[in-house]
Amino acid sequence: MDLDSIVKHPLSLDLYCFGEGHFEKHHITSISQIAPFLNQENKFWLNITDLENMDLLEEIKNLFDIHSMTIEDILNNQERPKVEIFDHFILIVVKMLYTRNGIEDLETEQVSFVFGKNYILTFQEHSFDIFDSIRARLENPTSKIRKHGTDYFVYALLDAIVSEYYTLLEKVTDKIEMLEEVIVSEEKRVKLSEIYNQRKSIQQLKKVIWPTRELLSIIKKSDSFLIKRRTLPFINDIYEQTVEIIENLEMQRESITTLVEIYMTNISLKQNEVMKTLTIIATIFIPLTFLAGVYGMNFHFMPELKWKFGYYLVWGIFIATAVIMAFYFKRRKWF
Amino acid sequence: MDLDSIVKHPLSLDLYCFGEGHFEKHHITSISQIAPFLNQENKFWLNITDLENMDLLEEIKNLFDIHSMTIEDILNNQERPKVEIFDHFILIVVKMLYTRNGIEDLETEQVSFVFGKNYILTFQEHSFDIFDSIRARLENPTSKIRKHGTDYFVYALLDAIVSEYYTLLEKVTDKIEMLEEVIVSEEKRVKLSEIYNQRKSIQQLKKVIWPTRELLSIIKKSDSFLIKRRTLPFINDIYEQTVEIIENLEMQRESITTLVEIYMTNISLKQNEVMKTLTIIATIFIPLTFLAGVYGMNFHFMPELKWKFGYYLVWGIFIATAVIMAFYFKRRKWF
Amino acid sequence: MDLDSIVKHPLSLDLYCFGEGHFEKHHITSISQIAPFLNQENKFWLNITDLENMDLLEEIKNLFDIHSMTIEDILNNQERPKVEIFDHFILIVVKMLYTRNGIEDLETEQVSFVFGKNYILTFQEHSFDIFDSIRARLENPTSKIRKHGTDYFVYALLDAIVSEYYTLLEKVTDKIEMLEEVIVSEEKRVKLSEIYNQRKSIQQLKKVIWPTRELLSIIKKSDSFLIKRRTLPFINDIYEQTVEIIENLEMQRESITTLVEIYMTNISLKQNEVMKTLTIIATIFIPLTFLAGVYGMNFHFMPELKWKFGYYLVWGIFIATAVIMAFYFKRRKWF
Amino acid sequence: MDLDSIVKHPLSLDLYCFGEGHFEKHHITSISQIAPFLNQENKFWLNITDLENMDLLEEIKNLFDIHSMTIEDILNNQERPKVEIFDHFILIVVKMLYTRNGIEDLETEQVSFVFGKNYILTFQEHSFDIFDSIRARLENPTSKIRKHGTDYFVYALLDAIVSEYYTLLEKVTDKIEMLEEVIVSEEKRVKLSEIYNQRKSIQQLKKVIWPTRELLSIIKKSDSFLIKRRTLPFINDIYEQTVEIIENLEMQRESITTLVEIYMTNISLKQNEVMKTLTIIATIFIPLTFLAGVYGMNFHFMPELKWKFGYYLVWGIFIATAVIMAFYFKRRKWF
Amino acid sequence: MDLDSIVKHPLSLDLYCFGEGHFEKHHITSISQIAPFLNQENKFWLNITDLENMDLLEEIKNLFDIHSMTIEDILNNQERPKVEIFDHFILIVVKMLYTRNGIEDLETEQVSFVFGKNYILTFQEHSFDIFDSIRARLENPTSKIRKHGTDYFVYALLDAIVSEYYTLLEKVTDKIEMLEEVIVSEEKRVKLSEIYNQRKSIQQLKKVIWPTRELLSIIKKSDSFLIKRRTLPFINDIYEQTVEIIENLEMQRESITTLVEIYMTNISLKQNEVMKTLTIIATIFIPLTFLAGVYGMNFHFMPELKWKFGYYLVWGIFIATAVIMAFYFKRRKWF
Ligand SMILES: [Mg+2]
Ligand SMILES: [Mg+2]
Ligand SMILES: [Mg+2]
Ligand SMILES: [Mg+2]
Ligand SMILES: [Mg+2]
Ligand SMILES: [Mg+2]
Ligand SMILES: [Mg+2]
Ligand SMILES: [Mg+2]
Ligand SMILES: [Mg+2]
Ligand SMILES: [Mg+2]
Ligand SMILES: [Mg+2]
Ligand SMILES: [Mg+2]
Ligand SMILES: [Mg+2]
Ligand SMILES: [Mg+2]
Ligand SMILES: [Mg+2]
Ligand SMILES: [Mg+2]
Ligand SMILES: [Mg+2]
Ligand SMILES: [Mg+2]
Ligand SMILES: [Mg+2]
Ligand SMILES: [Mg+2]
Ligand SMILES: [Mg+2]
Ligand SMILES: [Mg+2]
Ligand SMILES: [Mg+2]
Ligand SMILES: [Mg+2]
Ligand SMILES: [Mg+2]
Ligand SMILES: [Mg+2]
Ligand SMILES: [Mg+2]
Ligand SMILES: [Mg+2]
Ligand SMILES: [Mg+2]
Ligand SMILES: [Mg+2]
Ligand SMILES: [Mg+2]
Repeated sequence: MDLDSIVKHPLSLDLYCFGEGHFEKHHITSISQIAPFLNQENKFWLNITDLENMDLLEEIKNLFDIHSMTIEDILNNQERPKVEIFDHFILIVVKMLYTRNGIEDLETEQVSFVFGKNYILTFQEHSFDIFDSIRARLENPTSKIRKHGTDYFVYALLDAIVSEYYTLLEKVTDKIEMLEEVIVSEEKRVKLSEIYNQRKSIQQLKKVIWPTRELLSIIKKSDSFLIKRRTLPFINDIYEQTVEIIENLEMQRESITTLVEIYMTNISLKQNEVMKTLTIIATIFIPLTFLAGVYGMNFHFMPELKWKFGYYLVWGIFIATAVIMAFYFKRRKWF
Repeated sequence: MDLDSIVKHPLSLDLYCFGEGHFEKHHITSISQIAPFLNQENKFWLNITDLENMDLLEEIKNLFDIHSMTIEDILNNQERPKVEIFDHFILIVVKMLYTRNGIEDLETEQVSFVFGKNYILTFQEHSFDIFDSIRARLENPTSKIRKHGTDYFVYALLDAIVSEYYTLLEKVTDKIEMLEEVIVSEEKRVKLSEIYNQRKSIQQLKKVIWPTRELLSIIKKSDSFLIKRRTLPFINDIYEQTVEIIENLEMQRESITTLVEIYMTNISLKQNEVMKTLTIIATIFIPLTFLAGVYGMNFHFMPELKWKFGYYLVWGIFIATAVIMAFYFKRRKWF
Repeated sequence: MDLDSIVKHPLSLDLYCFGEGHFEKHHITSISQIAPFLNQENKFWLNITDLENMDLLEEIKNLFDIHSMTIEDILNNQERPKVEIFDHFILIVVKMLYTRNGIEDLETEQVSFVFGKNYILTFQEHSFDIFDSIRARLENPTSKIRKHGTDYFVYALLDAIVSEYYTLLEKVTDKIEMLEEVIVSEEKRVKLSEIYNQRKSIQQLKKVIWPTRELLSIIKKSDSFLIKRRTLPFINDIYEQTVEIIENLEMQRESITTLVEIYMTNISLKQNEVMKTLTIIATIFIPLTFLAGVYGMNFHFMPELKWKFGYYLVWGIFIATAVIMAFYFKRRKWF
Repeated sequence: MDLDSIVKHPLSLDLYCFGEGHFEKHHITSISQIAPFLNQENKFWLNITDLENMDLLEEIKNLFDIHSMTIEDILNNQERPKVEIFDHFILIVVKMLYTRNGIEDLETEQVSFVFGKNYILTFQEHSFDIFDSIRARLENPTSKIRKHGTDYFVYALLDAIVSEYYTLLEKVTDKIEMLEEVIVSEEKRVKLSEIYNQRKSIQQLKKVIWPTRELLSIIKKSDSFLIKRRTLPFINDIYEQTVEIIENLEMQRESITTLVEIYMTNISLKQNEVMKTLTIIATIFIPLTFLAGVYGMNFHFMPELKWKFGYYLVWGIFIATAVIMAFYFKRRKWF
Repeated sequence: MDLDSIVKHPLSLDLYCFGEGHFEKHHITSISQIAPFLNQENKFWLNITDLENMDLLEEIKNLFDIHSMTIEDILNNQERPKVEIFDHFILIVVKMLYTRNGIEDLETEQVSFVFGKNYILTFQEHSFDIFDSIRARLENPTSKIRKHGTDYFVYALLDAIVSEYYTLLEKVTDKIEMLEEVIVSEEKRVKLSEIYNQRKSIQQLKKVIWPTRELLSIIKKSDSFLIKRRTLPFINDIYEQTVEIIENLEMQRESITTLVEIYMTNISLKQNEVMKTLTIIATIFIPLTFLAGVYGMNFHFMPELKWKFGYYLVWGIFIATAVIMAFYFKRRKWF
């Protein structure tokens, strides 16, 4: 989800009451208006985005009998993804991940769910359109979300969030494959920090998905009456998706280690080539220059200088030396 | 299995009904034709390859009472190998691996089995000849596959798939041993990416075999009435094969790490040799060239130039210096 | 907490007796004065800072029936953080961490708690102001600390200590991010030892927080009558904080590994650049110098020297060689 | 055990029947001859080396009621060491290790045991003299092997095999210590592949000993009536030996990692020394050569050339420059 | 404990019989003399140092009903530290560590304890003065060792041994900190092998302390009647010491890894500096030397040579080139 595509909803406490063959939408302005819905057979959903309205939260805390520490978890946006199973409700804290300027710049948004037998409370700091698809499905009389309980509702939300993780995994994978291609082909220069940025993205993804996998595992094994047996295959499905994502992240992390090694080796190989060039040129010409220097000396008595073919002889020595050296380097496979 | 050797079967719903002393083959055109076989004592097998025919799958789902999430697992070709034990049937999802252009280019093909007391449904995207050997054994009246239950049938299929993994392991091992020989002997050049391609193959194999080992372990320990006690030694045998393969993959992975290290050291050693050559030549000739330069100066008053044996004296200095330097390098074991 | 901001309290045995709607402060001068408070319904708190007064500790040991090994644990300031659950009291040993001259210079201070049904004994070597906030809350008649039991009192203390760990984590994180920025931008020089100092800080933090997490986990699962069910959400909250801190420390440790790798690569890349400069200059000028040397030789018979345009021709060769070489290096992407 | 010292026994089915105060040796030519011994109180031992005689194996399979998969395990010489505890017998598969041409060239030989209440069947591909010591002990009327049950017999065999592992560990350790000495003293050249060969030997040893330790652990904890309580201290003894060997192999593996690091550092240090030599010589003489070149120029107007002491002055500059440079390098601790 | 400070006791079988308010010392010359003490209420202690006297050990084996494998464990000085809990006695095997020539040269000495309800047998190869402090405490009528049971006696011995480990840990830590200081300050040269020697010491310490921690953990959890509840806090205390030592060893091992990395980087940085020096000098003077060579050529027609200020012009070019190059290197931050 790119941040630019996020549509901000106006702050509002819309209460959606729904059930098989039933759907109402109420605009409430005070928590006390919820009371009549509490003991109905139909379920209702309330999305709270105004996490700074402490009075509102205090009323909710009292109405639904939520521990103050739970409210603190909902408010603290540094909370690690987790599930807490209470007698009469379940708290789930998860993270939405979205990119701001490409995959290197991930941001997290905390979303918390509190759900009981017939109510779902959702808490989020900003009102993203993640809940829009849910609203659409609620209005559809034949959708599963109407028939099933609050646990299926929560499944639908978690499914949407984990799908986003998949999209991010794919972006990271694409970027790493692109880097791999560039590095292996040695076409363009890559900065090492570009590779490490992907490592950071993987780390951030893992930091969010690991505890999400854990909380799904706890829900699967919980014996709370709020998680019905027929919802388990759905929970298991997203659980398996998180396992899959983690496995792929691990493989991508290994790919990065490999890329760094190839990158380093290429530097070494190039330096080797540079050194060889220098050595070949210097080793051939330095002795020749010495010899030219010898016959540039001004000693009064230097018999070779008077020889008729001295100059041609010296050129012969020059060429012979160069050729022999070149053969020597060739045989040692230096070029 | 090389892709080129794959024979495509025409799409058909052949129903094989079999039992001890019994074998029938029916060509069915609609799922409703299965009904009469459902409560028989004989077993039947149906192989479905047309995974895009949603109507067909819907009919199967209803006839065999399969959860929609299970159908989704069968359709999603990204599914991780797994077993799911239901009350009346067992779902197994595995991966066939085959090479397209050598071991560096592995492709995976998902195969799913759903089997109950007297039926086996197999699902595959393409109709490879993996089931041909099974068909041959079915037609043989004395084969074990006729006598034993559906669990033995599934064992036979898994055994064929795991055997393929062994073949791939051997190909990877051969390639790595070949690379090892080349690198240690330093005969030919090897590209680092060639080594890493093997690492990727190992990673892909492990990604498929790890969960396969896990699912076999779960089947071994399951107390489902569908897994009979006398089939357990067979299941255990392929389980132990996966353990063996994983152990060998782990060893090959270590071999690769070692190969990379030897490769890197060879680069270092060669660079060292290049540097020494340069240093020896330069260190010997640079001072000599200086001296030749000195007697090439044009000062009016340079007494040595007039000495009768000046020139020979200088040659003496040249040779003495070179010899001393050579001894020095020899003593320091530079060559 | 910076050491400079620590206010030293005068040594005193102030006994705070408190309960719902009750608060007394007594200045006691002998342990025998505690006796009347022992069987009251109200709770009392005694902070002991004089850990060298062995008589005092002997009296406490006898009055509260503490094992001599437990007293040794309290006295030994090298003790690893731990909890020990006895029949009639619980011992908790934790570490306060504070910086002396920046985050590289962490010091630890051991604090031990012994608490029973209605008493809390705290032991510390120096009297830091960590307990000041507790004193303030005790004097407030509506504070939770008055209403709840001794377990909540201990929670309040542990919470204060773990909050300090968060502050230190943030300091380490800031320092590492600063180093990262400098290293990636290559603006200033960083000494490798500066990076490793952060690694040491992380190690010291981990050494303290790991066992703290463990002891909180043990308290959570304990079934001692001293830990009341309604205190568990509070304990769980600080437990989750330690998990969070450890996870972040682990990520920072990985960041450091990455930083060292980037640092090393930058050194390699710079050396490569230096080598290239040398090679380009040397490879271009060494052959030219040779040629100049050739025409500086004093052979009597050197026909080229008499050519009218010999000198210009040689300059032509000089320039052509240099240009060709420059093109060659350009094509090989050396600059 | 060196392969050269292996004495090949002629193929024969010698049946050893033994018990307290009892010893018979029968040469049997058909499996049916075993029948009378089956329900005796005395134990008997049969060693089968002809693993290609499928009829023989079929008869044994039927007589002792062995699963076909167990026979396959015995025949497959790629089997991982393991124990399988059946109702009426126990299967143990282990590996003998022997060297062919030194420790770098390990070969494995699979040995399988099937033992019940009063019989031991041993299966091996080649007939090594490992069983000779057992035969000698059987013929000794006072030996423990006569008194104890079939489990002690198996212990004696396993003990002989694990002792061989110790010998191999010592050979590897000696070789590594020798390499360490050579590398640290820098006396001789060592090829990196020599070091890695030891790594491979360790890997092969570990591959065999790890599952052996595991199988011994399973036997220790088994509650099969075939493992008597008084044999457990013996089993435990070889179990502890495998733990000890694994621990030492792990330490040797770390030693190798260390050796490789020292080896690499020595290469770096030598290259550094080479570079310094080059730099010192070049840095001193290149500027001097330049100066000599200057006074070798043929300008008509060069006043210094006519100075009386110009030549000596230049020599002064040469010597002064060289001395200053030498001091500079000395101060920077380059030599 | 330095080996030089070890006082050798003359071989003797002193039997110490003790209890609350009771202390006798008997010099026995045969094992049969122990019999009268066996069923007393008082405890007795026998220290055996003559592990080659097989008759003595055979008598002890029979008198105390010890398994032959246990005697073998006591005799085999390669035994891994362990505890074995039998019905009527407990065997503990531990290692004393002492330095011969500094911390790099650790030697181990095996000490075994066998203790039952009222006897302690200790076995050691050499008679070190480790037991002297125990003897002194036995003679003191008010010491705990007299009052408590045999388990406290064993605690006292183990405590003495583990204290020695602490001393060694401190020596290793001091040596590593010293190396760290030298390496970071770059004052003196350090050989890489000096660093690795510390790694070996840590490895040896860990090899001894790991299983010691394990055996203490087993004793803590054992339900043998020989370990009394009131001794547990003492056992726990030394257990926690081993945990602490292991944690510190782990940290020291990481410090060594870091030191090696800093060491390697320093080599790289120095090589870089050497390369830069060479490159700067060569890059400045090689082109100048070329130019000097050009005007040293002997072409008959070289107009510049006749220019009045040709020589000064060339000097101008020399100086300008050098200055420009110096600026270029300065801007690139090469010096
Ligand atoms: Mg948290
Ligand atoms: Mg995590
Ligand atoms: Mg993480
Ligand atoms: Mg899955
Ligand atoms: Mg990869
Ligand atoms: Mg590495
Ligand atoms: Mg999956
Ligand atoms: Mg996996
Ligand atoms: Mg993987
Ligand atoms: Mg196996
Ligand atoms: Mg490894
Ligand atoms: Mg290998
Ligand atoms: Mg401790
Ligand atoms: Mg402790
Ligand atoms: Mg720790
Ligand atoms: Mg630590
Ligand atoms: Mg949390
Ligand atoms: Mg890591
Ligand atoms: Mg990071
Ligand atoms: Mg196997
Ligand atoms: Mg293994
Ligand atoms: Mg292995
Ligand atoms: Mg042992
Ligand atoms: Mg290691
Ligand atoms: Mg070692
Ligand atoms: Mg041992
Ligand atoms: Mg160990
Ligand atoms: Mg170890
Ligand atoms: Mg580390
Ligand atoms: Mg450290
Ligand atoms: Mg590493």
